[in-house]
Amino acid sequence: MSRIVMKFGGTSVGSVERINHVAEIVRSEVEAKNQVVVVLSAMAGETDRLVNLTKDLSKDFPTSEYDVVISSGEQVSIGALSGLLNSSGIKSQSLLGWQVPIVTSSDHKSARIEAISSEVILKLFDENNVVIIPGFQGISADGRITTLGRGGSDTSAVAIAAAIDADFCDIYTDVDGVYTTDPNKVPNAKRLDKISYEEMLEMASLGAKVLQTRSVETAMNNDVVLRVLSSFSDVGKKKKGTLVCSEDSISDKKIVTGVAASTNDAKLTLTGIKDKPGVAAEILGTLAENNINVDMIVQNISNDRKTTDLTYTVPNDEVDNAKELMDKLSNNLSYESLIVDSNIAKISIVGVGMRSNAGVASQMFDVLSKNNINIDVISTSEIKISVLINKDLTEKALNTLHEHFELGNTN
Amino acid sequence: MSRIVMKFGGTSVGSVERINHVAEIVRSEVEAKNQVVVVLSAMAGETDRLVNLTKDLSKDFPTSEYDVVISSGEQVSIGALSGLLNSSGIKSQSLLGWQVPIVTSSDHKSARIEAISSEVILKLFDENNVVIIPGFQGISADGRITTLGRGGSDTSAVAIAAAIDADFCDIYTDVDGVYTTDPNKVPNAKRLDKISYEEMLEMASLGAKVLQTRSVETAMNNDVVLRVLSSFSDVGKKKKGTLVCSEDSISDKKIVTGVAASTNDAKLTLTGIKDKPGVAAEILGTLAENNINVDMIVQNISNDRKTTDLTYTVPNDEVDNAKELMDKLSNNLSYESLIVDSNIAKISIVGVGMRSNAGVASQMFDVLSKNNINIDVISTSEIKISVLINKDLTEKALNTLHEHFELGNTN
Repeated sequence: MSRIVMKFGGTSVGSVERINHVAEIVRSEVEAKNQVVVVLSAMAGETDRLVNLTKDLSKDFPTSEYDVVISSGEQVSIGALSGLLNSSGIKSQSLLGWQVPIVTSSDHKSARIEAISSEVILKLFDENNVVIIPGFQGISADGRITTLGRGGSDTSAVAIAAAIDADFCDIYTDVDGVYTTDPNKVPNAKRLDKISYEEMLEMASLGAKVLQTRSVETAMNNDVVLRVLSSFSDVGKKKKGTLVCSEDSISDKKIVTGVAASTNDAKLTLTGIKDKPGVAAEILGTLAENNINVDMIVQNISNDRKTTDLTYTVPNDEVDNAKELMDKLSNNLSYESLIVDSNIAKISIVGVGMRSNAGVASQMFDVLSKNNINIDVISTSEIKISVLINKDLTEKALNTLHEHFELGNTN
Repeated sequence: MSRIVMKFGGTSVGSVERINHVAEIVRSEVEAKNQVVVVLSAMAGETDRLVNLTKDLSKDFPTSEYDVVISSGEQVSIGALSGLLNSSGIKSQSLLGWQVPIVTSSDHKSARIEAISSEVILKLFDENNVVIIPGFQGISADGRITTLGRGGSDTSAVAIAAAIDADFCDIYTDVDGVYTTDPNKVPNAKRLDKISYEEMLEMASLGAKVLQTRSVETAMNNDVVLRVLSSFSDVGKKKKGTLVCSEDSISDKKIVTGVAASTNDAKLTLTGIKDKPGVAAEILGTLAENNINVDMIVQNISNDRKTTDLTYTVPNDEVDNAKELMDKLSNNLSYESLIVDSNIAKISIVGVGMRSNAGVASQMFDVLSKNNINIDVISTSEIKISVLINKDLTEKALNTLHEHFELGNTN
C-alpha cells in the first residue's frame, strides 16, 4: 500500500469525458489498495471566465473578493469528481481549503501556504475515502478564502503530500513527463526517467512549463518524491513519466541533463554611461525597487575607462516600465542611448554533473560558434550555463546542443 | 436609520450591467444611513448549468457533493457584488454560509435552516460594512456545505432578517409587487400596497410566483416585515412595491384581496368503488406514503350507497406515479375505472375578510355559473375558496371574478 497525492490540471478535468477519465485513473490506484488524495484545478477555461467577470466589474477589483469569486472554480471540479466517484462505487469526500484546513498567509491572490492539518484527511482515509481537495486555495488566519496565484495547484498538491507524508506526489499533465528539451522544437527530444530537484528547478524557471517553480522548491524542501505523468494515456498501462527526486537517488548522472530555451525576455543596453562608483547599483536598485525582475547582467568597461555599457534582461511585459524608469534616471545619470532588443532567446544547458566537470561551458560556446550562432551575453550558475542569442536561431541552437551533448533518443 | 436585508434573485444579478444596477440600489440604502445585508442568488443560468454538469456526470449524483458544486454559483455572485461595492467606495464584505454561519439540517439539497448567528454580521456592521451573503446555502452540524433547495434564497433572506432583527426584508424581483391577480391574464390587475402573511401564503401556494411559500411562513413566524420590490426600476425613485405584514397592520381590509389560477394539477377520478369503511383512507394513505401531494378531494356517495366515486387532484408531474399506485391498489380494492383529466384549472379567491363575511362562496359560484363556467370540485379554507374548472376557461374566470369583487384599477 502506498499513500499517493494525485494532481490534475484544468485540461485534465475540462469536460465530463475528461472527468470520467480522471475517475478511472483514480479507480486504478484505489484498486491497487493505495490511499489517495486527489488535488484538482478548475475546469479548463473557468478561471479565465471568472477573472474576466471581475475585470468587467472593476479594473480595481479588491483581491479579497477576487479570491471568493475565483476559488469557486475548483469547488465545482472537486464536487464533480467526488460525486462521480461515489456514484460509481468509490467512496469519496471533497474537502474545501477551509475544511482541510489549508492555512495560508493573508496575501490575497498570491497567498503562501503556512500549515496544512492532516487530521481530517487521515480520518477520511480511516473510513476508506478517496479525499478530493481543490488546489490553489486556502484560508487565512482571519477566516477568509485565499488563493495562491495561478499555477498554485501544483504547490497545493506537494504541500498536502508533505503534510500527510505521502510516498508519491503524482502531477498529471497533458505531457508524459519532463523532456531533455522542447519536443516541439527538437523532434529527437527524449523523456527523462529521472531528474533532480535542482535540475528541475532550473528547467522550470527556464520555461519548461511542466511544473510550477514553487512546487519543486516545496518538494525539495520536504523530500516529496514527484512523478510527472500524462493524464491522457490509457489507464492501467505501466506508468512512464518522469521521477523528480533528490540527486542521491539518481545513479547514472549525466553531465548535461537538458537544454532549454526561453523567449520571454528583452535585452536593454545603456551605452556610454559616465563611469563612476555605484552606477550599476543605482540602475539595478531602481529596477528592484519597482519589482522588475532582472535576469542577466553584463557590464563592459570602455577602453578609456571613462564610459561603460550596461546590458540587462527583463521580462517582455516589463520593458515599458523599465524604459520609463531609465528615462527618469537620466536626470542624475548621464548615458548616451538606451537600446531595446526583444528579438533574443536565452538558451541554457542544465545538469548536476557540471559541478564536477570543467570545460562544459567552453564546449557549449565552441559548438554554437562553429554553427555561426553569435553569443551576446553569458551567465552561469553551479548547474546551468545560459547564453543570449538571436531569437531566429533558437531551434538551430537547441538542436545543435541537444545533439552535441547526446541527449536524444538513440534509435 | 433602519436595518435592512435586501434579496436579489438570479435575473437581478444576471450580468455585469445588472450587478452594477444592484450596487446602485445598495448605494442608495447606504447613503440613507441604513445598515444593509444583501442576500444573492446565483447569476441567472448558472445554477442550471451546474445542475446539468452533475446530471451529465451521473444520474445518481450524491446530494452531498451536489451541494458542493451548486453552492459555487452564489459564491461567485456575492464575491462579484462585494468586490464591485468596495472598488466603488462602499465598504463591504462577503460571508459564505459557513462564515456566518448559517447552520442547517444535514438534508442535502433540501436542508432547513436551524440557526443563524448574528455575531459576525453585527461585528461587520460595527465596522461600517455592507454584508453580502449567499442565499440558498448553509453548513450542516458536521461541517459540510448544504443547500436549501431551489427558491431557498428568499427563505435565507427572511431568516437572516429575523436573526439580526431587521426592520425590513426587501425581496427584489422582476415585478414591482404582488398583484390582485396575474397581470398577463387580467390587464386590469392592480398592485397591492399591503397583503397579510396569511393571504400571501395562499397566493404563493396558488402559483403567484413572487415569493417562496416557506419564506412567507418564516416571515410570519418571526414577524419579519417583507417588501416585494422591483430591481428593474430606477434607483432613488420612491419605492412602490407591496408590503407583506401581519393582518393587524392592515386597516382597510377587503373581503377578497386576490384571485389566483393554478394549472399545475391534474384530476383523477376512481368510479364505482365498492363502498366500505376505510376506502378513502386507504387510497389517500397510499398516495401520502409515496410522497404524492394530494390537494383537493371529493367523494360522492352513490344513490344505492353501495358504490362511491372519489376525485382528487395531484401535481401534473405526479400523475404517472399516482396511476401506477392506483393500478397496484386494484388488487385489494375494486373499482370500475380511473379517469385522468389534465385539462383543468384551479381558480381561487383569497381574502382575510372572508372570515367575517358569509356568502362570499355563493357569490363566487353564482358569478361563475352566470358566465357558463362549470364547477367540478370545490374546496375552502378560512380565507380561501377554490374551484376546479375547465382549463380553457381560466382567463374568463379570472377576469369575471376580478371584476365582480372590484379588485382592478378604477381609472
